[in-house]
Amino acid sequence: MTTPPAWRIRPAEARDLPDIDRLVRELAVYEREPDAVEARPEDFAAALFGPQPRVFCHVAELADGTVAGIAVWYETFSTWEGRHGIWLEDLFVVPEARGRGIGKALLVELARRCVHEELGRLEWAVLDWNQPSIDFYEAQGAIMLADWERCRLHGEALQRLGS
Amino acid sequence: MTTPPAWRIRPAEARDLPDIDRLVRELAVYEREPDAVEARPEDFAAALFGPQPRVFCHVAELADGTVAGIAVWYETFSTWEGRHGIWLEDLFVVPEARGRGIGKALLVELARRCVHEELGRLEWAVLDWNQPSIDFYEAQGAIMLADWERCRLHGEALQRLGS
Repeated sequence: MTTPPAWRIRPAEARDLPDIDRLVRELAVYEREPDAVEARPEDFAAALFGPQPRVFCHVAELADGTVAGIAVWYETFSTWEGRHGIWLEDLFVVPEARGRGIGKALLVELARRCVHEELGRLEWAVLDWNQPSIDFYEAQGAIMLADWERCRLHGEALQRLGS
Repeated sequence: MTTPPAWRIRPAEARDLPDIDRLVRELAVYEREPDAVEARPEDFAAALFGPQPRVFCHVAELADGTVAGIAVWYETFSTWEGRHGIWLEDLFVVPEARGRGIGKALLVELARRCVHEELGRLEWAVLDWNQPSIDFYEAQGAIMLADWERCRLHGEALQRLGS
């Protein structure tokens, strides 16, 4: 007899929307930005499960059917490589399911996709105070791009420039 | 009589490929990574002008037909906003055409697109030593996301994790 797997990684389906919405909010709390999530569940429904989606989600499902982790991602493009890549927008595992390799399995799922589809890079952002995550990512072979700063135009500044 | 415009911004076409390829390489030299561009012109052709492209380019064309600047971009998604946005992968204006507002016009073109299509953010990366560009971006209303670090898995590390 073999032990049944305690969890599996699979592409998200529309029935996962309440879980995706919940985990996005839990991640924002973890990131010390509890009020940052302006998205409504219907926004995720439209973006992830509408026609020709350009953003995707994988979930980690426990044996009892609970969704315990998510990876939300989309495709990038590097002009240096001349190839597409993957940007991992959100990676989150609920606290009670940590330490079982679920976070790594979600990362591996996307790394596999990169290898299989000849995508050149798997990238994401981490908060500079989040040393446990940085240690984990570096242990997987990731490098930190310390010399690049991220710039953002949004809200009123974006409206002003674009009007 | 009005003076004809000295340049215009327009979506790139397949005939711009040699210019796009040249300007991507010039930008890499400016970024002190002259050997970083592994992309071949046919990679840009496939990604920008193949079926259902997921990366796009606008060019600045001078009155004499010369391409003097490019903006290469693709769509992102923010789980906080529940909306798509734009990542500006490359913004470059050739040295001899600078100081005429071409860089700003390329940025405005994408900001307009954001406003028109209700995209929440226009984002890009800048090298931390590139103070003239940082000053320019901040003058347009951009903020620097100093507390986020960019992580990357690529090359052998990506192959290892994804195999």
